Amino acid sequence: MITALKRIVEEFVQQQELERALTDVVSQVKEAMSTECCSLYLADHEQQHFLLMATDGLSSHAVGEVVIGFNQGLVGLVGQREEPVNVANAQAHPRFLKTPQVQEDNFNSFLGTPIIHQRKVLGVMSVQQTNTRVFGEDEVAFLVTLAAQLASAIANVGIQKITRKSANKPSNDLSKKQIEGVPGSAGIAIATAYVLEPEITFNSILPRREANSPKELIKFQQAIKNTRNQLGELAARMNTLLPSEVSAIFDVYNHLLSDASLGIQVNEHINAGWNAATSLKFVIENTIREFSEVDDDYIRERVTDIRDIGQRVLVNLMQKDIAKRVMPEQFVLVADEVTASMLAELPRENIKGICSRRGSSSSHASILASALGIPAVMGLNDLPINSIDGHSIVLDGYSGHIYINADESIKREYKRLQTEELELNDLVQALADKKAVTIDGTPVALHINTGLVTDFDIIHGLDIDGIGLYRTEIPFMIRQRFPTESEQVELYKSVLQSYPDKPVCMRTLDVGGDKPLPYFPLEEDNPFLGWRGIRMTLDHPEIQLVQMRAMLRANIETNNLNILLPMITSISEVEESIRLLNQAYAELTEELKIDIPWPKLGVMLEVPAAIYQIEKLASLIDYFSIGTNDLTQYLLAVDRNNARVANLYDYYHPGVLQALQFTINECNKHKIPVTICGEMAGEAIGIILLLAMGCTRFSMSAQNLLKAKWILRHISLQDAHELLAEISVMSCPKMIREVMIDKLEQIGLGGFIRAGK
Amino acid sequence: MITALKRIVEEFVQQQELERALTDVVSQVKEAMSTECCSLYLADHEQQHFLLMATDGLSSHAVGEVVIGFNQGLVGLVGQREEPVNVANAQAHPRFLKTPQVQEDNFNSFLGTPIIHQRKVLGVMSVQQTNTRVFGEDEVAFLVTLAAQLASAIANVGIQKITRKSANKPSNDLSKKQIEGVPGSAGIAIATAYVLEPEITFNSILPRREANSPKELIKFQQAIKNTRNQLGELAARMNTLLPSEVSAIFDVYNHLLSDASLGIQVNEHINAGWNAATSLKFVIENTIREFSEVDDDYIRERVTDIRDIGQRVLVNLMQKDIAKRVMPEQFVLVADEVTASMLAELPRENIKGICSRRGSSSSHASILASALGIPAVMGLNDLPINSIDGHSIVLDGYSGHIYINADESIKREYKRLQTEELELNDLVQALADKKAVTIDGTPVALHINTGLVTDFDIIHGLDIDGIGLYRTEIPFMIRQRFPTESEQVELYKSVLQSYPDKPVCMRTLDVGGDKPLPYFPLEEDNPFLGWRGIRMTLDHPEIQLVQMRAMLRANIETNNLNILLPMITSISEVEESIRLLNQAYAELTEELKIDIPWPKLGVMLEVPAAIYQIEKLASLIDYFSIGTNDLTQYLLAVDRNNARVANLYDYYHPGVLQALQFTINECNKHKIPVTICGEMAGEAIGIILLLAMGCTRFSMSAQNLLKAKWILRHISLQDAHELLAEISVMSCPKMIREVMIDKLEQIGLGGFIRAGK
Repeated sequence: MITALKRIVEEFVQQQELERALTDVVSQVKEAMSTECCSLYLADHEQQHFLLMATDGLSSHAVGEVVIGFNQGLVGLVGQREEPVNVANAQAHPRFLKTPQVQEDNFNSFLGTPIIHQRKVLGVMSVQQTNTRVFGEDEVAFLVTLAAQLASAIANVGIQKITRKSANKPSNDLSKKQIEGVPGSAGIAIATAYVLEPEITFNSILPRREANSPKELIKFQQAIKNTRNQLGELAARMNTLLPSEVSAIFDVYNHLLSDASLGIQVNEHINAGWNAATSLKFVIENTIREFSEVDDDYIRERVTDIRDIGQRVLVNLMQKDIAKRVMPEQFVLVADEVTASMLAELPRENIKGICSRRGSSSSHASILASALGIPAVMGLNDLPINSIDGHSIVLDGYSGHIYINADESIKREYKRLQTEELELNDLVQALADKKAVTIDGTPVALHINTGLVTDFDIIHGLDIDGIGLYRTEIPFMIRQRFPTESEQVELYKSVLQSYPDKPVCMRTLDVGGDKPLPYFPLEEDNPFLGWRGIRMTLDHPEIQLVQMRAMLRANIETNNLNILLPMITSISEVEESIRLLNQAYAELTEELKIDIPWPKLGVMLEVPAAIYQIEKLASLIDYFSIGTNDLTQYLLAVDRNNARVANLYDYYHPGVLQALQFTINECNKHKIPVTICGEMAGEAIGIILLLAMGCTRFSMSAQNLLKAKWILRHISLQDAHELLAEISVMSCPKMIREVMIDKLEQIGLGGFIRAGK
Repeated sequence: MITALKRIVEEFVQQQELERALTDVVSQVKEAMSTECCSLYLADHEQQHFLLMATDGLSSHAVGEVVIGFNQGLVGLVGQREEPVNVANAQAHPRFLKTPQVQEDNFNSFLGTPIIHQRKVLGVMSVQQTNTRVFGEDEVAFLVTLAAQLASAIANVGIQKITRKSANKPSNDLSKKQIEGVPGSAGIAIATAYVLEPEITFNSILPRREANSPKELIKFQQAIKNTRNQLGELAARMNTLLPSEVSAIFDVYNHLLSDASLGIQVNEHINAGWNAATSLKFVIENTIREFSEVDDDYIRERVTDIRDIGQRVLVNLMQKDIAKRVMPEQFVLVADEVTASMLAELPRENIKGICSRRGSSSSHASILASALGIPAVMGLNDLPINSIDGHSIVLDGYSGHIYINADESIKREYKRLQTEELELNDLVQALADKKAVTIDGTPVALHINTGLVTDFDIIHGLDIDGIGLYRTEIPFMIRQRFPTESEQVELYKSVLQSYPDKPVCMRTLDVGGDKPLPYFPLEEDNPFLGWRGIRMTLDHPEIQLVQMRAMLRANIETNNLNILLPMITSISEVEESIRLLNQAYAELTEELKIDIPWPKLGVMLEVPAAIYQIEKLASLIDYFSIGTNDLTQYLLAVDRNNARVANLYDYYHPGVLQALQFTINECNKHKIPVTICGEMAGEAIGIILLLAMGCTRFSMSAQNLLKAKWILRHISLQDAHELLAEISVMSCPKMIREVMIDKLEQIGLGGFIRAGK
């Protein structure tokens, strides 16, 4: 039974046209369960009803027509109870709803199971039979297991759209589409989409019809010809190496390309009115499916050949269209995964916003966008990358929504909000040389986080209290080898000298987790619980020593170096780091024959166990820095890049707030300065709560610094204390956030947490 | 440069003979850096010297002969400083060591870098040149990056062996080999190794010579013939599907098998004195390497073909040898990954011990072995699985060591310890009907953890205070679909009725993390921080509701059900679970028309954020259970299945102990019963410290229960308090462990933490 189940799910996932996928599923379930009828309903939560989407057994005319209210009928009951309903005589059930259109008079027994994704009922799948009987336990288990597996696939499609549109509209319709992602960088953008390096894959091809078949046939023949030529060149180049095997392998490919094989099938689809890419897609996907079903590893491996050859032809088919594009003057950058290097390569003034299908607010691209002040939305799973180029986009980096080809009214509203933002920005800019101090006179130290390749020119000349976090890993990540000692010295010197009279906290190499080095690949099942930060550098003292030597050398003139150790879990790690620092110091003193300044040493508090050892740590080091991003992740046991659980990640979780209060208290008790350097410090709600907890040193992106100053100058410590007291009895992170937002709106600081002023 | 680097590392890893791998590396580095000499030394920590293992530039006669003391010469200096040493005129350096054997008089400049793995210097790599110059920064960076990457590969080989043995001995020598793993289940075993399902791969073939070439040639021809026949059958079966492609693909394979292609090369190696498997391995690996270097995706993909065809021939070559084996009467079970189902299938009385290359003490196999009382060692990375079958093994499940073909003296010592263990066991058995109470009269409640398929018959009739943890996931994991409600009812009923007068804590489905369901596959980057436990079941109320209904129905007669919720992070998760429990209860009351008992409800404390919300949780539920395994993992941010960081995982870490003390205090303050159900409760050190912290309820495997009772009856609460006070000022987990072990030895409880009585 698991084989049937697996096959049904796999085919469902591979099928690109949802209607067809649903139709296939109901037929396959009907067959697998040897029953007489299987139907699938999807929920429309706005309309509060289920719509019949597919059936094998009921009247096909009812598909797309029949709706059943959420509190109506047996289908409604399945949705309400969120569990299977299994009745022998449906017609006699008090909840039975007579729906003549579906023609179900023959059927008596009914088994329905909900399709649930992330606690939300997406639909109902039912089977029906003539004879009056309760379905068996095995049948119930089969349907429940299947529904659970289909749920996430169905959720990914975005069913709201589907249940609303008529069956004949093409499914790649982009008119007035709204897509939800996660906020990456605050702000609003309105511009044309520009897709960078669109990926040419069969998955990205949306089926499209094209009446001019002869033109498509020629396009396809040309692509085949180009592919043959490329393979010929390749074969010639390879011929020196094992000549006979190579030519035999190429023979297979040439054969696959010939008219007698895949070619003829593609031509048939083109003649049936599909465009060349769609036709190729149909044939290749079909062939792959057939091969995949064969119960032999060798044949299944052949799928690679089919996919490879198909991919080569497809690229030749599409390349022309892509090469023709020109970059708009102002655009929203769109990509499957926007990376920091893409941002570095494109002219910054042209990028108005960023849409990325992958990633979250903790991605490097988000952090960089935030530093550059470019609004960004990440994690847009449903972004139709390959059909969006050139369309208009409204991007809301506060809520994490984008609108494709929005109505004029939406555009007008967002333009108004944009204007208000600019006004707010002007207000804030006026604070540049004012001190950060609360209404009731508490002075606060504001530092900046830096270390990204392109944010360095932004940070010069700001009125700040220091650099709270300089990330040293970027120079390691952009090279193809470890940077040398003198390369590091030059770099660190320029950072230390940018604020020669202020403290500069340089974190030692913090790679691993989600930041691998290209030349030092690691494979771990749980990289966030793995070999990262100090764990890696202490295992490689030859790397740690060189970095410490470089930092010490860079600090000779300015003497403003504060070394910061990431991912500290145990006292012994600090002791070992001090031993290495002593060694580096002794070596340099001997080599250079001068007195060099001894730096301050600090520890990141980001591993939960470390916050219970503050007393012992305090005797070894000079300062603490709380990394709220990772600390929250470990306290909640949530990887926030994982969409399935990302909604659990929240710094305003009461458990996290309690832990932060405990940590700040411990640091203050042992009289060691403590800075907050996570994203939380750059948020209006975060800085107010942390201030109330007793922290007066914060480090954030340069972009957030003036806003933070504005907030601090418009709130009293007294207010902050009251707010903290108010939320500390609450148990729900969402409620805490709402209360704080209300309060900020009341005191006129709402513009910092949503679009507008 | 990164290409050269990658290639050198990849070839090194693929090369099976270490001597040859090292020789290749020095030549390639010499070439890549365009220098005149490259040499590689490995450290022998017992002898405190470096041994020259390979050189391209120095005298080849010096290889395997020349040793340099750890505090001698420039090579020694590199090791001492743990960083690169770069000198223009080595001969003039104060640390230069004249070593005539190596013939290095021509060389002046010297650059050496340490090879470090997990903080340990494994060796030194050096380059030398005639002209007097300092090596460039790029060259230093290249050598450092390369050394860092080679380090883990060299560490895996186990260099102690290599530096000690003469060059001519075969490297698959198993005489008196000791291998280190991690303890899986306590105890000692002495028996013959029995390898289950040995994996036939090229990696597992150790090069072996065979003088009888004609015999090997025939064996190889026979294997080729069998492979051809199998492919022929396959092709025939496939011919209905796309006939022309299939035959073309098979043609390639037949071609590769022919004498003209790979066959002839294999024959050459056989004639040169290697056995058939080794010869095939050489040819296939060589061909794969050549193909992999080609800069084209398509050609690189062809590697799959070569590997596949090679694998098919290899299996035909080896199969006979494997089929011949018989299972010994008593054996140590050996496998790449010992699974719970292997243990379930084999006759339990024959298995004396377990050796697994993968896994840790938290693997299911370890937990099961522990429950069954079978000693086990896991994580034996260096276990030579394919050459160990039939050899004698001494297994120490306390320290995590195994000895292959040990000396008689070692065997004698372990036999003595085994006898002492049996005596200790008899002593402990005598306590079966005694109460668990400390010397000074503190009563302690001892519960058991259960839920494994095969441990159920062990637990019947024990004098226990209840079942502290019944894991419900096993019935879900061994099926191919979700179990039905009535299947669950039957199972839960049998558990509840096994101790009808005692509380039975049933944990709701806790899958995800390292426990996936076969029919509900998930792909997550960090599964331990992902969709697991209550997160998954609340997202699928249709699954959670059925399980709760089944539990409530099973409880009707006995009324001893305690439901336990895993992975609780937020209050809302408990509220949502109560809502579902209410729904299940209401449905059942209506359906069955009887009063059914309301169960007790408890929460697992294993997510750090939860321990800060005990007050709020206490108002919603009846009891707490601390899951020390996962809690430790999150507090320390360490995945203990990851060998690179597993040494950081320790429940006796002071940060973890502080958090546990805090948690127990909070539970006691709010007067809610708290049980410890992690492995820590089953350990002598753990139970004493937790008792001192104020916990008097523990749950552990049945195997550990009587031992725990013995310990409690031989210690006073006063002693426990003193021990806790003594270790709570310490910052090093290892030291805490040592102090506790000393103390346990003093009071005569040493037999519970090491081999012997």
